[in-house]
Amino acid sequence: MIQRKKKSWFYMLFIWHGSVLPQLVPRLSLLLVFSMVIVYFNGTLYHYKVPLNPAPFTLFGLAIALFLGFRNNASYDRFWEGRKLWGALVIDSRSLLRQALSLTTYDNKSPQIKEFANLLIAFSYALKHQLRHTNSDTDLQKRLSSEAFERSKTIGFKPTFLQYELANWVKKAKLEGKIDSIGQMAIDANLNQLSAIVGGCERIHSTPIPYTYGVLLHRTVYLYCFFLPFGLVDSLGWLTPIITVFIAYTFVAFETIADELEEPFGTEPNDLPLNAMCLTIETTLSEMIGEPIPSQPQLDGYILD
Amino acid sequence: MIQRKKKSWFYMLFIWHGSVLPQLVPRLSLLLVFSMVIVYFNGTLYHYKVPLNPAPFTLFGLAIALFLGFRNNASYDRFWEGRKLWGALVIDSRSLLRQALSLTTYDNKSPQIKEFANLLIAFSYALKHQLRHTNSDTDLQKRLSSEAFERSKTIGFKPTFLQYELANWVKKAKLEGKIDSIGQMAIDANLNQLSAIVGGCERIHSTPIPYTYGVLLHRTVYLYCFFLPFGLVDSLGWLTPIITVFIAYTFVAFETIADELEEPFGTEPNDLPLNAMCLTIETTLSEMIGEPIPSQPQLDGYILD
Amino acid sequence: MIQRKKKSWFYMLFIWHGSVLPQLVPRLSLLLVFSMVIVYFNGTLYHYKVPLNPAPFTLFGLAIALFLGFRNNASYDRFWEGRKLWGALVIDSRSLLRQALSLTTYDNKSPQIKEFANLLIAFSYALKHQLRHTNSDTDLQKRLSSEAFERSKTIGFKPTFLQYELANWVKKAKLEGKIDSIGQMAIDANLNQLSAIVGGCERIHSTPIPYTYGVLLHRTVYLYCFFLPFGLVDSLGWLTPIITVFIAYTFVAFETIADELEEPFGTEPNDLPLNAMCLTIETTLSEMIGEPIPSQPQLDGYILD
Amino acid sequence: MIQRKKKSWFYMLFIWHGSVLPQLVPRLSLLLVFSMVIVYFNGTLYHYKVPLNPAPFTLFGLAIALFLGFRNNASYDRFWEGRKLWGALVIDSRSLLRQALSLTTYDNKSPQIKEFANLLIAFSYALKHQLRHTNSDTDLQKRLSSEAFERSKTIGFKPTFLQYELANWVKKAKLEGKIDSIGQMAIDANLNQLSAIVGGCERIHSTPIPYTYGVLLHRTVYLYCFFLPFGLVDSLGWLTPIITVFIAYTFVAFETIADELEEPFGTEPNDLPLNAMCLTIETTLSEMIGEPIPSQPQLDGYILD
Amino acid sequence: MIQRKKKSWFYMLFIWHGSVLPQLVPRLSLLLVFSMVIVYFNGTLYHYKVPLNPAPFTLFGLAIALFLGFRNNASYDRFWEGRKLWGALVIDSRSLLRQALSLTTYDNKSPQIKEFANLLIAFSYALKHQLRHTNSDTDLQKRLSSEAFERSKTIGFKPTFLQYELANWVKKAKLEGKIDSIGQMAIDANLNQLSAIVGGCERIHSTPIPYTYGVLLHRTVYLYCFFLPFGLVDSLGWLTPIITVFIAYTFVAFETIADELEEPFGTEPNDLPLNAMCLTIETTLSEMIGEPIPSQPQLDGYILD
Repeated sequence: MIQRKKKSWFYMLFIWHGSVLPQLVPRLSLLLVFSMVIVYFNGTLYHYKVPLNPAPFTLFGLAIALFLGFRNNASYDRFWEGRKLWGALVIDSRSLLRQALSLTTYDNKSPQIKEFANLLIAFSYALKHQLRHTNSDTDLQKRLSSEAFERSKTIGFKPTFLQYELANWVKKAKLEGKIDSIGQMAIDANLNQLSAIVGGCERIHSTPIPYTYGVLLHRTVYLYCFFLPFGLVDSLGWLTPIITVFIAYTFVAFETIADELEEPFGTEPNDLPLNAMCLTIETTLSEMIGEPIPSQPQLDGYILD
Repeated sequence: MIQRKKKSWFYMLFIWHGSVLPQLVPRLSLLLVFSMVIVYFNGTLYHYKVPLNPAPFTLFGLAIALFLGFRNNASYDRFWEGRKLWGALVIDSRSLLRQALSLTTYDNKSPQIKEFANLLIAFSYALKHQLRHTNSDTDLQKRLSSEAFERSKTIGFKPTFLQYELANWVKKAKLEGKIDSIGQMAIDANLNQLSAIVGGCERIHSTPIPYTYGVLLHRTVYLYCFFLPFGLVDSLGWLTPIITVFIAYTFVAFETIADELEEPFGTEPNDLPLNAMCLTIETTLSEMIGEPIPSQPQLDGYILD
Repeated sequence: MIQRKKKSWFYMLFIWHGSVLPQLVPRLSLLLVFSMVIVYFNGTLYHYKVPLNPAPFTLFGLAIALFLGFRNNASYDRFWEGRKLWGALVIDSRSLLRQALSLTTYDNKSPQIKEFANLLIAFSYALKHQLRHTNSDTDLQKRLSSEAFERSKTIGFKPTFLQYELANWVKKAKLEGKIDSIGQMAIDANLNQLSAIVGGCERIHSTPIPYTYGVLLHRTVYLYCFFLPFGLVDSLGWLTPIITVFIAYTFVAFETIADELEEPFGTEPNDLPLNAMCLTIETTLSEMIGEPIPSQPQLDGYILD
Repeated sequence: MIQRKKKSWFYMLFIWHGSVLPQLVPRLSLLLVFSMVIVYFNGTLYHYKVPLNPAPFTLFGLAIALFLGFRNNASYDRFWEGRKLWGALVIDSRSLLRQALSLTTYDNKSPQIKEFANLLIAFSYALKHQLRHTNSDTDLQKRLSSEAFERSKTIGFKPTFLQYELANWVKKAKLEGKIDSIGQMAIDANLNQLSAIVGGCERIHSTPIPYTYGVLLHRTVYLYCFFLPFGLVDSLGWLTPIITVFIAYTFVAFETIADELEEPFGTEPNDLPLNAMCLTIETTLSEMIGEPIPSQPQLDGYILD
Repeated sequence: MIQRKKKSWFYMLFIWHGSVLPQLVPRLSLLLVFSMVIVYFNGTLYHYKVPLNPAPFTLFGLAIALFLGFRNNASYDRFWEGRKLWGALVIDSRSLLRQALSLTTYDNKSPQIKEFANLLIAFSYALKHQLRHTNSDTDLQKRLSSEAFERSKTIGFKPTFLQYELANWVKKAKLEGKIDSIGQMAIDANLNQLSAIVGGCERIHSTPIPYTYGVLLHRTVYLYCFFLPFGLVDSLGWLTPIITVFIAYTFVAFETIADELEEPFGTEPNDLPLNAMCLTIETTLSEMIGEPIPSQPQLDGYILD
């Protein structure tokens, strides 16, 4: 996630970092040169004048508006749902620890409570690693008992495994008489929530927006930009390349952002800061049981990952 | 579901598989030839010049934007709701098994637990077969006791039957003193969820977007494309067929995708990979109770079914 | 609900049943004749040439797009919410019967269970009759005890009455020791759901989209169509009537569909098939308790009512 | 709420009641005269010809479409949410009375049950009066015990007070052994719902759509209408005033409806019929406990308040 | 939040406070002067006539409509979700106090009940201070026991701490036999709600709309306004500056409002009145337990903060 202070309206026009402009420069330069050639030959290809005018672009434009609008809303909804799911993870982790503290008769400082908090922290790290296809061993080893860690290594779906460990913790507490059936059920309802969070993240991660949309949108946008200079050259003359590149920039940039947001769990600049959110969970849970708070994340340039 | 890696922006312009272009080629070729004829006769039919210009197309275009936009959003919502329902099935199956493990006093390796897991796996297969109108016998026979399988054969709504078997399992567990009333109710709440999933899938499957919309949209799009070359020929000349076919491609392709997504449980390229999702459920549940994991699905070309 | 198989793109252009075209023919014919007269007089009324051109229609068009788009989305949302509510009724009926079977200690074949199932079936019929303002006596008499039927006759809100009978059934079961407090509460939660379904249907039924919207939209669409031939006649000449009628068709048809969907519980072609859904409920519930399945609905032409 | 039967498409064009036209007549007349003056002087002010043409209006139009579309959706959502909340009140009142009847061991005809029903009815009236800033004393006195009524008079937030009385009723029932803990909790969950309904209504009532939107939209619409005759006069001539007033009518009427719906609890023609809904609640609750049904509301002209 | 009475349509055109016009005056003046210069030189820069016409602006306009529409909807959704969360806080605080009163056997006037109410009031103030990055000490000291206040000072996430104190209060009540397990669980469910409210507010506060959108939108709008006078000067002549500034005003103002609403917990004019809402909570809770009501907020000009 890009984290920058709002600047004055004038300064914002020339920002470089946090814009997608840098990665679009090659494409837009190509289009600029192409437009210049067309202006030079006055829209004539091999002695054939290409008879385009702005009218058909309004018709194209309609299709582009439909596609871009749809694509962008769908992508942003996925981004925001991803954020909500991780927000729900923060919420649910706090609720579960609060329940462990107030519905059981364990002492606040007992090793059992600490074990429960560690399972919850490990859970968020495991989910992060599953979504980013990275190795969770270092993060789990720190927080799990060596025996649980060993078992976790053979398991593919680690968050599900940890959730089961949480359920087991409650079962054990009940067998030890530290919690009654009703308390167990209250915690169980929040464990259902954890299931829903994992499942929701997996859904966003594994099911992209249907591929065919992307292909169709992509083609429409790029062919539009390719035809544009032919359509503008007669009326705009030497201004054609500038206007073409600027219109192309708005459409292509919009498509590129939508593409980044579609899968919000990655490590691209506009993706969600899963590391920072894991740390928030660790911080609040540690605070609740009086454990030392981990050191806070450093902003790497403008990017919070 | 089409599963392809993202390619460079340039490569994406020429993709063939994963686009709906192949199935549209006949229609678009017809339109191309038709446009060429109109250009050849200069927009004149039997000595009558057809006096169209681009202006009315903006008015048409408005109607098309309204219809296509609505149709597409409605279809995508159905697709995505279908995906959410199957995601909820994954979530709910895991939750139910976790509850069977932690709220009852059965041993993790007991045959009862295995029976419960098998019922859940059979449930997802039964739902898939109901939605795709295929025969579920092979998939059920593997996972049900022979007695339950026999009874299932006389039943029309198999998922509802299996859900009732799950409820019966819990009732039996209670009679055997392995679970108390409160635990039973916690499981019952998740069984309600299963009902909601089956009902939701049936709703999407049995109630299409009102038929009249499709007819209206279809007519508007195709008549628009038919009139288009008359409107463009005076200003665009020999370029008319190319522009006509390209505009037609964007609208017709958009309509075709919306049509595929409307019923997301089928086996068209953009439909949901129900087989893969059943396998995911089988895999996680097997992992939770330490059973061997089934072999993973092979990608058939680019399609995950 | 219109139920037709998808046909080829070409065949769909000439469909008559399932389109709203039939009921629009008089209006569109009137407009056709009117446009022809205008073409004949070349847009001149009593020697005054009406100086319209396509430009103002783009401005009008904007208003129409706003109104039609809004009206259509609101209507479709009501249709789809209505469908969801009836889907929830299917779901909830199954869940309640499952609970009656698994949370009580009644035998599966006992008369009490059958009575409960019958109350649920009667409930769906009663709701249908309330929404369609038809007489529910025949349907209720078949399924209620004669005593309950007599009482039902004096009651205005029959679904609420039946819901209360369901609650009474549970109360009696509890007094007979067949269910405990916790089981009663689990069923009670689903009875709350039934309340929500009835209330939701009543809300859609009794509160249309504010009347003023309809008036405003109606006027804008019809005046637009009335002015249109004046605006097109100078540039389109003899083609004016065809284009006018076609544009009018798209807008008027869209408004007409929205009007039908606004109240989805009636018996117009695009309304919800409440009869078929009552039968689905009856079928699944009968299957669950091993009762004979009622005969399935016959498609009346293309219409499922 | 305006309640009129649907009329034929032709009749709808000339409806007066139920349209916002009456209140717009002065403004539109002003605009008509203004346009006529401009036509008379041919768009010339003090010898300066105002050089407007339709082109900039397309750009303006875009802004208006954005603003009106947003404003209207936001207003309608508030209207519909308000309706849902009152629908939920109907639902919840029925559920609570059903629970009081089936979860307690009070007799159906006992004074306690009647007191509970009266508290629920009083609750809906109190909410109505709070939202409309009217005096609730008459309505409360009829339904509360004189002692409770006296206490209610010192309280600002009357619905919250009545909700607390309902909770007290349950507490007393429990102390008298008429309901157990689990039943109390089931009712408590529905009391939470009542809280949510009151809070939701207060939210809509106290937080309008940000004021700045209204100002901006208002200015854009009116300045647009003011400039319009200058832009149209050259091409439309004597038709300018008619077209101007008609376009202005669509935009201004749309804004006016949005304004009415924004706060749906008032007594404007398109507002929600809170009186009728209170009466619906009173009717169904009376029916459930066999009390006489209050007389039904009379439609005052076309308005249900 | 700006709170003004609705004025007549004419008066609204000239409102100054409550509009964003004041902060836009410098930018718009700059644009006015710039447009005048262009009109003076007739659109010629250094002897080069800039050959722009209105056509490309329709294409630009499309992009702007897409961006502004999306940005505005996303911002308003955040504003409204923020309002819903604070509304839920009002709802939930009342529900929790009602539960403390009716599910425990404490006397209504007991110090424990008062402590619970104070914890709830302190909770809302703590959340406000966290979201506005202000110091909560004064507000907490008044409502917490000195011991709890001391502990709160070392804690970063104060609302979470207070929520835990509320849970502790219930735990203590249970140990003292004033509430049973089932009552505890009912309160615990509402404490989960409090978690969800805090988490939701933190989500909106910490995750802005992706930065890149803002940059892209900003550039498109400002470059559009910069090019606009070149495009209009040939057809509009001396009217160019007025029309340019007015179009610019609508777009820039819309962007500015969206920017204010994006983070609704601040103290800008259109932000949510968190102070007033804390006071509402304090007022209703005090009323419920018969404590004196705090003095009501004074409207500072038109702004409720």
